Amino acid sequence: MPFELPTPEVPEEVISLGTLIVDLVGVFAGSVLGALLAERRKMDLMGFLVLGLVSGVGGGILRDTLLQAGPPLALVKPGYLAAALAGALAAFIFELQHGPGVRLLATLDALTLGAFAVAGTQRTLEVGLSPGTALLMGAITAAGGGVIRDVLARQTPQLMKAVPGYNATAALAASAVCLALSMMGHPRLALLAGMVLGGGLRLLSLRYGWRLPVKRARSAKPPEAGPRDGAP
Amino acid sequence: MPFELPTPEVPEEVISLGTLIVDLVGVFAGSVLGALLAERRKMDLMGFLVLGLVSGVGGGILRDTLLQAGPPLALVKPGYLAAALAGALAAFIFELQHGPGVRLLATLDALTLGAFAVAGTQRTLEVGLSPGTALLMGAITAAGGGVIRDVLARQTPQLMKAVPGYNATAALAASAVCLALSMMGHPRLALLAGMVLGGGLRLLSLRYGWRLPVKRARSAKPPEAGPRDGAP
Amino acid sequence: MPFELPTPEVPEEVISLGTLIVDLVGVFAGSVLGALLAERRKMDLMGFLVLGLVSGVGGGILRDTLLQAGPPLALVKPGYLAAALAGALAAFIFELQHGPGVRLLATLDALTLGAFAVAGTQRTLEVGLSPGTALLMGAITAAGGGVIRDVLARQTPQLMKAVPGYNATAALAASAVCLALSMMGHPRLALLAGMVLGGGLRLLSLRYGWRLPVKRARSAKPPEAGPRDGAP
Repeated sequence: MPFELPTPEVPEEVISLGTLIVDLVGVFAGSVLGALLAERRKMDLMGFLVLGLVSGVGGGILRDTLLQAGPPLALVKPGYLAAALAGALAAFIFELQHGPGVRLLATLDALTLGAFAVAGTQRTLEVGLSPGTALLMGAITAAGGGVIRDVLARQTPQLMKAVPGYNATAALAASAVCLALSMMGHPRLALLAGMVLGGGLRLLSLRYGWRLPVKRARSAKPPEAGPRDGAP
Repeated sequence: MPFELPTPEVPEEVISLGTLIVDLVGVFAGSVLGALLAERRKMDLMGFLVLGLVSGVGGGILRDTLLQAGPPLALVKPGYLAAALAGALAAFIFELQHGPGVRLLATLDALTLGAFAVAGTQRTLEVGLSPGTALLMGAITAAGGGVIRDVLARQTPQLMKAVPGYNATAALAASAVCLALSMMGHPRLALLAGMVLGGGLRLLSLRYGWRLPVKRARSAKPPEAGPRDGAP
Repeated sequence: MPFELPTPEVPEEVISLGTLIVDLVGVFAGSVLGALLAERRKMDLMGFLVLGLVSGVGGGILRDTLLQAGPPLALVKPGYLAAALAGALAAFIFELQHGPGVRLLATLDALTLGAFAVAGTQRTLEVGLSPGTALLMGAITAAGGGVIRDVLARQTPQLMKAVPGYNATAALAASAVCLALSMMGHPRLALLAGMVLGGGLRLLSLRYGWRLPVKRARSAKPPEAGPRDGAP
């Protein structure tokens, strides 16, 4: 073992509880933000509930459905569905579309992105799949719910658009560092580093407008009239 | 046991057969109605088949995929795929878009909604998951196929829109009563009450234009220019 | 056995390797073509990756998620994710939108359609499900990824539109012949015949503009003003 980290002895239960709290905060924040999309679309109460639930727990459920190692954790462990439901109802009852409340929730949503990615990565390794799959599952856990939300609300998935803010990218970075440290035998540091890196990267990318590259057009000819397929 | 119900002794096989018939009628009706959306969209035969199949059996398949207790019943038990296929072909061959036929099918579709919700609830309890999850699965069984249908046909899922007619709401009510009576030790009454409540609520809500609440705007300022659609 | 086929003795490993190569070529070609849709939509790098992955391996993953006989092969067997990733990156780096490269890829994509259908059919039979389900799973393996791609890119799934070119149809034909020959005790011939029929039918249908029937309007009255729900 090349170096020894001065990690304080934190009991396992404290870590489990801490992870659960971070998870539930992330589910709640994601659910509120998803349900606010239902508000902008003038949907009814059921629209709030559906967009809240898929935004809050959709990514984890998609991961567990793909991994096929038992029913989705969000359907088994208490708290997840309740947190998502609470978020959707809060968005329906309170006036959150503008103001400091939604800014706080967006910050919490960003900060918890790394925790979701780490959870997906570690779950995939536990199930025995490869590091490459674990990376993908980290990204799906953190960003998959937003994709389902966008599909149901009929907008292009945010994470595929050339807009500022890393999303799946921050999740992939969190998964990668978590994976590296896990394989080096530091599971707790992996957890912490992934959470900090993912959350930090997401927050900074939103703050400073970082974005992924777009393909550089090489030819000088004018663009086509529009997308050929799928034009209505 | 606080009260004893005067249920006549109905053999188990009769109940199974009755449930199966109701299920298949619901699958067939849902499939025809889904395929009629393909007709309005001027899709080809494959569009009829796809929208018919997902409308007829999509909800149950989504439930079983989430529960992970074996392959979806609709893919295992004979009759389901055949009923959905028959519905799609009937919509392709016959002129059903208007007239009394489609009205009958819409009534059958509404009446069988409770049966789907009850099936989803009971299956979730059998698998050992919590009552909260069973409620959700009841709604997904009854209304999930319509959501997939709407996504594939590129329209906002009906059950999220502020339009008259309970859908997931009726399914949740059916699941709730089924759940309560099951937990009180009356599985057969649970089955019957859920079917009647769900089907009745759906039918009455369509008849009288009941709808879920929409969020009341509290501010007097003019609305935004419109849904931004995925901007930022 | 009514007739004896003069099949040369090909070792099992050669067949496995050949099938794998055909599969990976199909995944790569499908991924490039999917990612080119991200280019037309002016998505960022993540859009290329997502559309490439779902186009390349989405159909097989959907099949395995439905079959529930273990995690999706594309997430377990090495090579699949890598081939899809390589395709998406190739589309991002190189100028492939027009020119002979994309035509070659489209040909390879068409030619491998039968292999995907056969793989889905055989996997379903291995798992012990019925021939009808095996047909459906063949079509889902070959054409399901394209449907997910189209949903994410917000266009009507190509295979439901009244446009030239068989897609799910060619897959169903490949599955049917594979099924028939498998059940007659000729698994290797089933493999080969399905691949040739599916690939050939897809290629010929594109070349000669074959299309599925559209429902013939019977009444002479003018069409409705437009689809009522979800009008774009």
